[in-house]
Amino acid sequence: MPKLALLRHGQSRWNLENRFTGWVDVDLTAEGEAEAKKGGRLLKESGVAFDAVHTSVLTRAIRTANLALETADLNWLPVRKDWRLNERHYGALTGLDKAETAAKHGPDQVKVWRRSYDVPPPPLDPGGPYEFTADRRYAGVPNLPRTESLKTTLDRVLPCWEGVIAPDLKAGKNLIVAAHGNSLRAIVKLIFSVSDDAIVGVEIPTGNPLLIDLDASLRPTSARYLDESRAEKLPPIAG
Amino acid sequence: MPKLALLRHGQSRWNLENRFTGWVDVDLTAEGEAEAKKGGRLLKESGVAFDAVHTSVLTRAIRTANLALETADLNWLPVRKDWRLNERHYGALTGLDKAETAAKHGPDQVKVWRRSYDVPPPPLDPGGPYEFTADRRYAGVPNLPRTESLKTTLDRVLPCWEGVIAPDLKAGKNLIVAAHGNSLRAIVKLIFSVSDDAIVGVEIPTGNPLLIDLDASLRPTSARYLDESRAEKLPPIAG
Repeated sequence: MPKLALLRHGQSRWNLENRFTGWVDVDLTAEGEAEAKKGGRLLKESGVAFDAVHTSVLTRAIRTANLALETADLNWLPVRKDWRLNERHYGALTGLDKAETAAKHGPDQVKVWRRSYDVPPPPLDPGGPYEFTADRRYAGVPNLPRTESLKTTLDRVLPCWEGVIAPDLKAGKNLIVAAHGNSLRAIVKLIFSVSDDAIVGVEIPTGNPLLIDLDASLRPTSARYLDESRAEKLPPIAG
Repeated sequence: MPKLALLRHGQSRWNLENRFTGWVDVDLTAEGEAEAKKGGRLLKESGVAFDAVHTSVLTRAIRTANLALETADLNWLPVRKDWRLNERHYGALTGLDKAETAAKHGPDQVKVWRRSYDVPPPPLDPGGPYEFTADRRYAGVPNLPRTESLKTTLDRVLPCWEGVIAPDLKAGKNLIVAAHGNSLRAIVKLIFSVSDDAIVGVEIPTGNPLLIDLDASLRPTSARYLDESRAEKLPPIAG
């Protein structure tokens, strides 16, 4: 039966600076690199024979994957990069300081943008400094988003899940998905059938792989964080 | 017209220890890492818009690719790993000290094994410490070699070239191939139609990308090392 490990990237430069990042391609900090290596050690110690890795087209997730594979002596594993595993696009909030944004719009409004299921921030300003349409990594992507809620993030994760990741799992492969808080939330929602209300409260810790055992229909039969000392609450598994 | 950059990995631990490496999965040294980053800087400064990377399943080539991409701000590029781009398999010489091997077999015999086109070393001893058949990265590969000459190395590079790399180039993609002395020699022989005798004298420097402009039939129209101060002699381009 296939196994799936979800690995959330660790601290990035903008996590440290407390700015809304989304699709901005900031790198990991030294602490983020250490978290990725720790994730790799945990994956190695799990004893699972992984077959492939899926990640986003953002540096902080890709480097997390690469550092984890280096640490686990698995550099040779195929790594597939897909924009649909990117972090949620934060629209007009992209690049803003989180505290300044709360002061300007009020903490309640910011909480709605950050923690509601289906309310996106205002769209990215076309004339602003963060324009992703000219970025070669998104060439050929139709209807590139200009903002996303968790719901619309899930809408674009879903075809990646159904078209790429799930077929690999159904072929019996054990996979690592190295990605972001919200793209991993989307995958957890799909696998565990979490409600819209409950999913916004699910927080996957960084650098601590969530290892999920799946049945042939890709329903979870068990799940655990590999570092149990830093485990967050998991969604219940339907009996 | 497509462009192809050939990047040979830099110093590995066994380069430093002067041992025959072949398929043994040793890592880069700190100097090898610096060479990979320098290669990445040169690729970036070339101004070529690269689309994808092909590499082997050996750590020293994969990490060269990853470090070059990090340095060139191109982490998002697809990286395809293929065992057929591996270094030549050194058979029974694998793991041996080069000086000791010369003392035992005579320098002339070792020169034949190292520098002839079609004389492989004796095959890998089945009971020895370097057995690659049990390595998961080669699962599903039929007739895994137990020794290789440059000729038989080219024989397995060829289907990778024809089936994977050439179609990408013919689709107009600009590619980086991050690989090894002998798999890159094989590609140079194919592109430049180098004779069997002449190819053994072609030495691609490490960490110094060879940038080749190709026409629609993938014949070279020009070629240059990106660091011209460390350029080696190139095969002539047919007029």
